[in-house]
Amino acid sequence: MTQPSRQAFVPFVSVDHMMRLVLQVGIETLMVELADAIEADFRRWPEFDKTPRVASHSDIGVIELMPTSDGQQYGFKYVNGHPGNMRRGLQTVTAFGVLADVATGYPVMISEMTILTALRTAATSAMAAKWLAPKDARVMAMIGNGAQSEFQALAMKAVCGIEEVRLYDIDPAATRKCAANLAGRGLRVTSCKAPEEATMGAQIITTCTADKQYATILTDNMVGGGVHINAVGGDCPGKTELHRDILMRSGIFVEYPPQTRIEGEIQQLDPDHPVIELWQVIAGEAPGRTGLSQVTLFDSVGFAIEDFSALRHIHRRLQDTGLFQELDMIADPDDPRDLFGMICRAEAANAA
Amino acid sequence: MTQPSRQAFVPFVSVDHMMRLVLQVGIETLMVELADAIEADFRRWPEFDKTPRVASHSDIGVIELMPTSDGQQYGFKYVNGHPGNMRRGLQTVTAFGVLADVATGYPVMISEMTILTALRTAATSAMAAKWLAPKDARVMAMIGNGAQSEFQALAMKAVCGIEEVRLYDIDPAATRKCAANLAGRGLRVTSCKAPEEATMGAQIITTCTADKQYATILTDNMVGGGVHINAVGGDCPGKTELHRDILMRSGIFVEYPPQTRIEGEIQQLDPDHPVIELWQVIAGEAPGRTGLSQVTLFDSVGFAIEDFSALRHIHRRLQDTGLFQELDMIADPDDPRDLFGMICRAEAANAA
Repeated sequence: MTQPSRQAFVPFVSVDHMMRLVLQVGIETLMVELADAIEADFRRWPEFDKTPRVASHSDIGVIELMPTSDGQQYGFKYVNGHPGNMRRGLQTVTAFGVLADVATGYPVMISEMTILTALRTAATSAMAAKWLAPKDARVMAMIGNGAQSEFQALAMKAVCGIEEVRLYDIDPAATRKCAANLAGRGLRVTSCKAPEEATMGAQIITTCTADKQYATILTDNMVGGGVHINAVGGDCPGKTELHRDILMRSGIFVEYPPQTRIEGEIQQLDPDHPVIELWQVIAGEAPGRTGLSQVTLFDSVGFAIEDFSALRHIHRRLQDTGLFQELDMIADPDDPRDLFGMICRAEAANAA
Repeated sequence: MTQPSRQAFVPFVSVDHMMRLVLQVGIETLMVELADAIEADFRRWPEFDKTPRVASHSDIGVIELMPTSDGQQYGFKYVNGHPGNMRRGLQTVTAFGVLADVATGYPVMISEMTILTALRTAATSAMAAKWLAPKDARVMAMIGNGAQSEFQALAMKAVCGIEEVRLYDIDPAATRKCAANLAGRGLRVTSCKAPEEATMGAQIITTCTADKQYATILTDNMVGGGVHINAVGGDCPGKTELHRDILMRSGIFVEYPPQTRIEGEIQQLDPDHPVIELWQVIAGEAPGRTGLSQVTLFDSVGFAIEDFSALRHIHRRLQDTGLFQELDMIADPDDPRDLFGMICRAEAANAA
């Protein structure tokens, strides 16, 4: 078989490589780097080609493509959401992504993104909290102790200086798992028996539950003045976590309104209810928190630019670490018009 | 490092594997199989979730995602189009694709699709010609002798019984390349010095050129009564190959009107100019060719369902051939809620 040229190879970051990368760099360092990368791209938000994700819905889940481009590089993520998967021993969310060169259209990296999505979601939450939460926030309530919870806790520690997390989940086994995973990582971890107990004394409340349709994870009485709510779990049509009354008294910050209006907590509100785009706060074009007693809400649904930032950062990191394998993914004949001849020559080489 | 579970692995068909598959099955046999697979999916067209491709345009090219689903399986293709790539020694079009299980959202195959796109495009053309061209068609003019030309010629031979191809390209080197590649494959190959010469005596005219914006590859006088035109090259906004007069006297057949109105030859016509969807002909819901003297035109731009059919067929073929490698692409912890713990255990395993 004739050897493919260099152009034919695309670096692939496997799950194993991604885990090694996380361990080699250190999860908190990587969270800080990802938060910085995402913040830098939010600051130049208008440069991006933006579109709501392209979803293919079925009765039991959704498969989505999330593309974006800054004119130099193009990225997209494939991601599914299947709440019933957990009962079958599968991940609710799995993902992979691709970074490509806009000038040639050639992919330059393909990467697992199940782990990377967990990292970038937590890094985005922490970056938003850095801008919106009270400056002296040291305690976070973590409602929902599933696959995303430890990432959220460590990102909030690394980026915002959170010192205590107060865990609650309807399933005590999830809380035990989360507490065990966080042990010895420099956080005070308190396991709580009720959501009211978890929110006590917390300046940041993170909600990240997966299963329920139009659930009310937080009721109005659980949210004191000055709190920052980081609502992660309400992220598709028909799926919300917060009581509407909380939204009505909060300053609401979102990623990309055309997507959040459909998928976020604000699907409970009128379509013209005022919201602020987070990038505008970062770029200095809109105010963030307006006072000590304001309730701020980051209604996070996840946007393609965050994946793009994460893919670019991992791509940069690959140069130092070599944590990838090369895939023979691009047919690259010597004469670009001679694709057929490339196959013929493979035949001759095989016969030889 | 702990071993990933079986669920974590996704079969990957490399360029090398795809070439071996083509050679092992035989290109004409594979063309017939693909044409049958595509026809079967066109027959059940209403079952598919359809959307125009999601394009990200730049000054020099486009990167597109083409998803579709039949409710059981989901497929998408990543494909670029960069006409200037050829001058840099790169492919104008490269592609890869993914097939996934709708029930779980897990990918079941990732495949190179540069070669597979060439195969499915030719198989679709031949399948359309089987339904639309004169039954006794034996001669095809092939205008444009680039990367797609040999695939078109062999598909038309295998599926429609074409015996002679008459080649023309503005670059004689392309014609020489095409003629050399087709030598000894059971086709009479005639190289022509002008497009008028190529179309002489042809019952099928295939146009497949890449470079020009609003070019006129075919003029009205070159198209006699009863001819079937297979217009492959006009496939994005601002790129057409046929003179408008030809369209005005042709029965026009398309894949998916919302996409073809923007990308196909019919972008030259009023938005309500009547066209017939090819699937309707196959399903018996619309007439095909209405008489011996009718000019029929398949205004092909390529649609996601054709890629889906091709991916499914290759996936079936993988079982017999074993021509794939397994990628550790899906993070799959023993407890789906314990993604973080999977990373921790990888650390422990590394330290051991």
